[in-house]
Amino acid sequence: MKINIERLMSNINEYARYGEDPKGGVTRPSFSQEDYSIRNRFISELQKINLEVSIDAIANIWGYYAKSQTNKKPILIGSHLDTVPNGGAYDGALGVLVAKEVIQTIHEYNVDLNHPLCIVSFTAEEPNDFNLSTMGSRAFLGKLSKEALKSATDSTGRTLKEAVEKAGGNLDSISPLEKEFSAFVELHIEQGKRLEKANIPIGVVDSIVGIYRDKIIINGEANHAGTTMMEDRTDALNTASEIVNEIEEILKKNDTKAVATVGKFNVYPNAPNIIPGKVEFILEIRSESEKERNNLLNNIYVNIKKISERRKTTFTTENILNQSEKKFDKDIIESLATTAKEMKVPYTIFPSMAGHDATHLSEITKTAMLFVKSVGGISHSPDEFTKQKDIETSANVMLQAVLNLDNKLN
Amino acid sequence: MKINIERLMSNINEYARYGEDPKGGVTRPSFSQEDYSIRNRFISELQKINLEVSIDAIANIWGYYAKSQTNKKPILIGSHLDTVPNGGAYDGALGVLVAKEVIQTIHEYNVDLNHPLCIVSFTAEEPNDFNLSTMGSRAFLGKLSKEALKSATDSTGRTLKEAVEKAGGNLDSISPLEKEFSAFVELHIEQGKRLEKANIPIGVVDSIVGIYRDKIIINGEANHAGTTMMEDRTDALNTASEIVNEIEEILKKNDTKAVATVGKFNVYPNAPNIIPGKVEFILEIRSESEKERNNLLNNIYVNIKKISERRKTTFTTENILNQSEKKFDKDIIESLATTAKEMKVPYTIFPSMAGHDATHLSEITKTAMLFVKSVGGISHSPDEFTKQKDIETSANVMLQAVLNLDNKLN
Repeated sequence: MKINIERLMSNINEYARYGEDPKGGVTRPSFSQEDYSIRNRFISELQKINLEVSIDAIANIWGYYAKSQTNKKPILIGSHLDTVPNGGAYDGALGVLVAKEVIQTIHEYNVDLNHPLCIVSFTAEEPNDFNLSTMGSRAFLGKLSKEALKSATDSTGRTLKEAVEKAGGNLDSISPLEKEFSAFVELHIEQGKRLEKANIPIGVVDSIVGIYRDKIIINGEANHAGTTMMEDRTDALNTASEIVNEIEEILKKNDTKAVATVGKFNVYPNAPNIIPGKVEFILEIRSESEKERNNLLNNIYVNIKKISERRKTTFTTENILNQSEKKFDKDIIESLATTAKEMKVPYTIFPSMAGHDATHLSEITKTAMLFVKSVGGISHSPDEFTKQKDIETSANVMLQAVLNLDNKLN
Repeated sequence: MKINIERLMSNINEYARYGEDPKGGVTRPSFSQEDYSIRNRFISELQKINLEVSIDAIANIWGYYAKSQTNKKPILIGSHLDTVPNGGAYDGALGVLVAKEVIQTIHEYNVDLNHPLCIVSFTAEEPNDFNLSTMGSRAFLGKLSKEALKSATDSTGRTLKEAVEKAGGNLDSISPLEKEFSAFVELHIEQGKRLEKANIPIGVVDSIVGIYRDKIIINGEANHAGTTMMEDRTDALNTASEIVNEIEEILKKNDTKAVATVGKFNVYPNAPNIIPGKVEFILEIRSESEKERNNLLNNIYVNIKKISERRKTTFTTENILNQSEKKFDKDIIESLATTAKEMKVPYTIFPSMAGHDATHLSEITKTAMLFVKSVGGISHSPDEFTKQKDIETSANVMLQAVLNLDNKLN
C-alpha cells in the first residue's frame, strides 16, 4: 500500500496558490482572506473523503474518520495551513496534506483499523499579527485564557473574536480538552540543514529543545563623541560587541548542537555623535538539556563579567523565558523509527530546535514528530523547498507508521 | 584692571535658576518659557550697562558698546544661553556672562577703546527640537535658507516662525551678514578632559576638527535562531561587533588625538529568535587633519573588508558627512596666547573636537576660542562644573585679550 504521490504533489501545488506572492512565496497568515478560502477548500475536501468535519472554538479544523464504531480514541495526524508573510509552500501545509493523503489512501484501500483516525489543521501556528503563535493548539489545551483571547486585536484593530468567528470558531465556547487521542504524530519540514548535511530523507523528532532567554543591559557612559578621547571612554557598545562575539566563540567550542543567539540588540541613545551609554540585548540559548544550558550560561556569564569589568562597564540581567525541553513519547518515537527501519528508509533521531503545535499536544497525548529534509534548511522564505522523492518517502513512512501504531496502541 | 569675580559668580548662579531641574541640572532649550524669561533678563541687564540692544531676524541678541563715535568694526565676544535638556550651568552661559562682565568692567573703568565692543547671545546653539543646532550663527550667516527656517516645526507642531517671533525675531527679514566685525572670540568650557589632565586652566583653540561620517551596512543572512546551527550562520551582528572593536583598536594604537565612534547602530530584524540579517551603523571620525582622517579610514576599511570576507557577510558604505577642519585666525590665536603668557597663566593650544558657533563666525571674521577647564570634562549633564578660580583666570585673560586686540587690530 502506497500513497498517491501525483495526487499529493498536485494538492501541494494547488494549496500554494492560496496567498501566492506574484514574486514567489506564499503569504497566508491565519484569518487572511487566503486563509478563509483555503479553510473552505480543505473542509470540502475532507467531506468528500467521508470525514466528519468539526470546527472548534478557536477554529482549528478537525476531520474524524472511522470505518466502524469503536470506543478507542483516535490517532491524530496533521499540522497547520497558515504561513508567515512571504513564507513557503511546505511549512505547515505539507504536514496537513500528507495527513489527508494518508487517510485518503487508507480509505481507498478500505483498510480495517482498530482506531479511528483524526486529522487536524491548527489555527495560527506561525507568529502573527495577534501576537499569539501556536494559538490553535494552546487554546485547544486551555493554555490561553478566554479573557486574553477575547481582548486580542491585530494591528488594524480587528478583534480576534471577529476573526475567529469568520472562520467558524467562537471564543465564548473556549473550553479545554474537548477531545482525547491515542497519539499525535506531526510531519513537518526540518527548517534546518541536519538532514541535508547527513543526506538522510527523514528525522524522528524525540524532543523539543528548551528555550532560555535573558535580557542583559550593559551600562557605560554616554559622552560627547568629539571631546571624549578614546582612553577616557566607557563605551557600552564596545563591551556588548565583545560579549556577542564571545558568546559565538563559546558555542562554537561546545561540541553539542546547542545554539545561542543575540537577535535583539538596541543601543542608547543611538546618535552618531554620542558614545553609547547603554546597550540592551537578549541572549537566547536552545539546548536539549537543562544541564548543558546551565553550563553554557555559567560560562557565558563568567565572560560577560570579565569583559564588563575590564571595560569598566556594569551589567544587569533578567530572565524573561525559561521553557524546559519537552521529551516526546518513547513508544511513538520507537514506532516511527522501527517503521522507517522496516521500510529501509535511512533516518536519524534528533531534537527539534524550534517549537511546534506538537510541543503542546505532547502534554495530553503520546506524541512525536517526523521531519522531512528541506533543501538548504530554508524555511519562512519563498526559497523553502522539499524534493518530491523526499515527500514521497516521508508520506509513505507516515502511512505505514499510522498502520503500525494502530496495531500497537491500546 | 580685573573683572569682578563676585558679580560674575552671582550672575552664573542666578542664570542657572532659569530652567533649574528640581533634581539638579538646567533645562533651558531655545524657545522654552525659561529661554524667553532669561532673554528678557539678559536684555535688561545689557541696557543697564549702556549697551544698545538689538534682536536680529533669528532672535540672536546683540549688545553694542562704544564710548565714542568710530568707524572701526566692533570686536565681538559672546556665546549662547540655551542648554540641552538636563544640561549644566556653564555650557554657553559662561561665555555670555564672561563677555558681559568684560564689557561691564571696561565700562566701569571708563577705558577708551579704539573699537566698539559687541556682545552676542546666539539662538539655539544646542541640538534642539527643531533639529537645527548652531541655528543662530548659521542663520545669521545666511547658511540656512528662509524656506527651510519657515517650514521648520518642533515635535509638538509649533512652527519655528512662531517660536522666533515670540523671542523678538522675524523669519521674513532673514538676510545674511547684517553686521561686520573686526574679530570674534568665544569663551566656552572645554567639554573634554585635556586641560584637567594637564592641570592647565585655559586652552587657546586654534581649529575645529573635521568631522567625517559613513553609513555602513553589513548584510548577513536572517535565519531561524533555533534550527540554524552555529556553523551554518552568517550573523551580521557578529561581523559588525568585530568591526566596532577593531575600530576602537585602530584608534587606540593611533598616537594622535583623533577619535572614532560608532554611536548609531541598528540591528535587523531585531527579534530574539531571528539571527541578525543586517546591521546598519554610522562610523564617525574626528581629526585635525584630512590626511590623518583618510589614513584612519583606509586602515578601518581594510579591516572591515577582511572581517566581512572571513565571516562571509557583505557590506556597503555611503558617506553622509564630510566637514573639513576649520583653522582659526593666526593673529587672534597668537594674541590670546601672548595675553596668557604676559599674565603668567599656564595655557595650551589645541583644536576643538566639537563644533561651536565660532566655527561659522570664522567664515566672516578673524576668530578664535578660549576654553576653560571643566571638572571631569563633563558637559551636557547636571554634573557639569567649572571651578571659580578657573572662571576668574579665564575671565581676566578674556578682558586683557580684548584690550590687547583693541590695540593690535586695525
